[in-house]
Amino acid sequence: MAKIIPLKDGTKKDAITRKASMLFRQKGFSATSMRNIAEAIGVEASSLYNHIRSKKEILQEICFKIARLFTEYADETGRQELSASGKLEKIIRFHIRMMLEEYEFVYVSEHEWKHLSEPYLSDFKDLRKFYRLRLAAIIENGIAGKEFKAIDPHVAVLIILSAIGGIENWQRSKKNIDPQVLGESMVKFLLRGLKDD
Amino acid sequence: MAKIIPLKDGTKKDAITRKASMLFRQKGFSATSMRNIAEAIGVEASSLYNHIRSKKEILQEICFKIARLFTEYADETGRQELSASGKLEKIIRFHIRMMLEEYEFVYVSEHEWKHLSEPYLSDFKDLRKFYRLRLAAIIENGIAGKEFKAIDPHVAVLIILSAIGGIENWQRSKKNIDPQVLGESMVKFLLRGLKDD
Repeated sequence: MAKIIPLKDGTKKDAITRKASMLFRQKGFSATSMRNIAEAIGVEASSLYNHIRSKKEILQEICFKIARLFTEYADETGRQELSASGKLEKIIRFHIRMMLEEYEFVYVSEHEWKHLSEPYLSDFKDLRKFYRLRLAAIIENGIAGKEFKAIDPHVAVLIILSAIGGIENWQRSKKNIDPQVLGESMVKFLLRGLKDD
Repeated sequence: MAKIIPLKDGTKKDAITRKASMLFRQKGFSATSMRNIAEAIGVEASSLYNHIRSKKEILQEICFKIARLFTEYADETGRQELSASGKLEKIIRFHIRMMLEEYEFVYVSEHEWKHLSEPYLSDFKDLRKFYRLRLAAIIENGIAGKEFKAIDPHVAVLIILSAIGGIENWQRSKKNIDPQVLGESMVKFLLRGLKDD
C-alpha cells in the first residue's frame, strides 16, 4: 500500500501535529502540555508559538484534517461510476489504510475530539454525523439495488466503523497478525456481512 | 429478552459495584473517589468499608465478575451439541445482550481494567486472552467443518468483538435505533460475514 501523500506536507506545522498526536494518544489531550510537545520535537516551547497558537489549535488541526480527508474521500468515491458495493469497498479500504498508516491522527480525532471548544466542537460533531449519513446512503442504495440484503443501514455503518476501529487493539498488541492479512480479511468479512447468505 | 439473573444478587455488595460502575464509566476510575460512590448510594463513606475494602477491590469485583461470566458462558456453550455456527451465534447474542442490559459493568471491565493491580492485572489479561482464543477455536472448527469460509480466526474474533463493542456508540447516542433491531441486524451481519458470498 502506498503512503497517503496529502497528509504529509513536510511543513513545520505538520511535524508539530504529528508529534502532538502521538502524545495526545499516549497521555491524553488533557495531560499533554505545549512543553511536552516542544520537548518531543526538540525545540523550545516558545518557538512552537511561531507555528501554532495553542494546544487546542493543534487538536483542531488534527480533528478537522482527518474529518475532511474522510469526507472528501467518500464524496469523491460517491461520484465515481461504481456499484454501491464497489464504493463501499473503496471506503472500507481507505479506513483500514488510515488505521494502519495514520493511526495516531485517526486515534486522536476519534477519541480526543470531546476536548474541542465551540464552535469547533459542534462543527466536528456535524461532520461526523453527516459522514455516517453518507455511508448509510450508499448502503441504502445497495439495498434498493438488491446488491445488499435488507439491513438497517445505520446499524450496518455502526458495525463497519466499529469493526475497523478494532484495529486499535491490533495496534496496541504484539501485532502478530500481518497487516495485509488483517486488512484483506476485514474487507471480505464486512462486505460479505451485507450480502447473501 | 429476559434479564440476566446471576449478575443481580440483591446483596449490598452488588448495589455498591453497580453504582460504582456507573461512576467509573462516567468519570473514569481514577477520578472517582470512595466518597463519590458513598454519596451516589446515599450512605456515609465509612459504612461502605463494611462491605468493601477499597476502590480497587470494587474494580476487581466488576472486572472478574464480567470476565468469569463470559468465560463460563462460552465454556457451557462450547460443550453443547451445536454446530460451530450455532455456538458462535449463541455467544454473539450473549455479548449483545450484555452490552444492552449490563452496559455499565461491561464498559468498565472493557475500559478500566488497566487500573487493576498485580496479580489481578495479569490474571485479567490472561482471562481476556484465553477467552479470545476460545472464540477463535470455535471459528477454526467452523472453517475446518466448511461451515465458515477461510479467514484468519483471530481477525474474525477482532471484527466480531469490536463490532459488538460499537454498541457503546449506540448507548451514548440518542438510541434512535430499536435495540431489538440493533441486536438482530448485528447477529445476521456477523454470521453472514463468516459464511458464503
